[in-house]
Amino acid sequence: MVKGHTRPCLADLFVPGHSVDCVIVGYENQQLKILLVKWKLGGPWALPGGFVGRDHDLDAAAHQVLEERTGLKSIFLQQFHTFGRFDRPIVYKDQLNQIIKIGQRLGLMDREFSEWVSQRFISTGYFALVDIRKTRPTPDQLSEKCEWVALENLPELIMDHSQIVAETLKHLRIQLNFLPIGISLLPKQFTMQDLQKLYEAILQRPLERSNFQRKILKLGMLDRNGKLLTGAANKAPYLYSFNLKKYNTMVENGIGFSYLGDKIL
Amino acid sequence: MVKGHTRPCLADLFVPGHSVDCVIVGYENQQLKILLVKWKLGGPWALPGGFVGRDHDLDAAAHQVLEERTGLKSIFLQQFHTFGRFDRPIVYKDQLNQIIKIGQRLGLMDREFSEWVSQRFISTGYFALVDIRKTRPTPDQLSEKCEWVALENLPELIMDHSQIVAETLKHLRIQLNFLPIGISLLPKQFTMQDLQKLYEAILQRPLERSNFQRKILKLGMLDRNGKLLTGAANKAPYLYSFNLKKYNTMVENGIGFSYLGDKIL
Repeated sequence: MVKGHTRPCLADLFVPGHSVDCVIVGYENQQLKILLVKWKLGGPWALPGGFVGRDHDLDAAAHQVLEERTGLKSIFLQQFHTFGRFDRPIVYKDQLNQIIKIGQRLGLMDREFSEWVSQRFISTGYFALVDIRKTRPTPDQLSEKCEWVALENLPELIMDHSQIVAETLKHLRIQLNFLPIGISLLPKQFTMQDLQKLYEAILQRPLERSNFQRKILKLGMLDRNGKLLTGAANKAPYLYSFNLKKYNTMVENGIGFSYLGDKIL
Repeated sequence: MVKGHTRPCLADLFVPGHSVDCVIVGYENQQLKILLVKWKLGGPWALPGGFVGRDHDLDAAAHQVLEERTGLKSIFLQQFHTFGRFDRPIVYKDQLNQIIKIGQRLGLMDREFSEWVSQRFISTGYFALVDIRKTRPTPDQLSEKCEWVALENLPELIMDHSQIVAETLKHLRIQLNFLPIGISLLPKQFTMQDLQKLYEAILQRPLERSNFQRKILKLGMLDRNGKLLTGAANKAPYLYSFNLKKYNTMVENGIGFSYLGDKIL
């Protein structure tokens, strides 16, 4: 799409009409954050995404986006929904037309690429939970920025990307039902308050402290380690870590009704 | 695709390379069953499926399949996974080639249609839970049969449809964690044993009777009605039905960890 640069036709390289969008979720300063990119061509922020190689699995397209934008490999990436509304292109028609015009003016977008991005895309959404401190946000060739943005202050997003983010949160809340998801988002050792704050950020409502602690400890997936070193040793909170063995059993069996099922039903 | 029949080009009517496959699940004689079709062209059984209209939502394609194959309208249909492996066409290449040959010999399949079905398809899977007694299985124009088949005795299926069924079951088991799914599968009134048998069919393992009853009643979504009329009134089991109001609250909030969350956390 760069002027004067010869390359094979997009339709030879990629499956037409299908894309992936990745919602990469991290947790920092008691806030859920997601990774966004800002296109060189202007317009609102966007989810990192990509096309599906003719010779590649759909999953591979999403893995490539995750790896290239974060520098992380072999991270668990979960497909959660495919967005196939007929009016998806209409949702962002104005935004798109503006971006195409700017792109053409700057010589960053030729006719083939304009037509390619203007077609109807069915897009499969993936999400990953990552440890922000291990990531190295890297813009793609179309973007000038790639940054972590707090979910609470989410800016306007391009196309239907806000809906895609909302759908991710719904899935994340459902997963709280049966998966111990904290392990990907928290540092190795954390306080009970850290864990509670994370659950509160996902559920978007306050939880009662002592009941949360009782309920979580009952699941038996945490090891209690030493105390957090603060000035006042007396009131210092305990540090916890996930017990990997119990954690893996739990991931396999779930922690919700059907897991209880093994014991209770 | 019928010889001598003029019609618009397939690529004008449908989104190329994207299909839907529907896993329609029912429950009868203590068995989970799914609806399958047998193509006129031969080959193994297949899931009912379809293409995505150029001017239609992806969801609409799945709804059309469900309505046309079962006669049911406005049934809750859930998208659960999009199957996008690069080698999907290779999985069923032999089966497909054979079917295309038979189709061409019988004059049921022209070159355009052969090429259309031979392209790489990314397919979005949907599932629905339905009351078998309310359905009227109806073959599509390519099929000679449309029948309910017990999951226990599932025959060989075309392409990767067995994998699609396996993935559905995984999702159904996860949903047992947080959704009271029985309402779509059982008659209005049922015994505790009926409900337990359904859970056993989904989880594919036996459950302990008294614990199951205690656990389920604790969820508070069942109303106890009169006794089932049998010869021996003394030992006759109670009939239960879902309390729609509580049921709906439960569907909204979930019955797993995050639902308990409202009360306990």
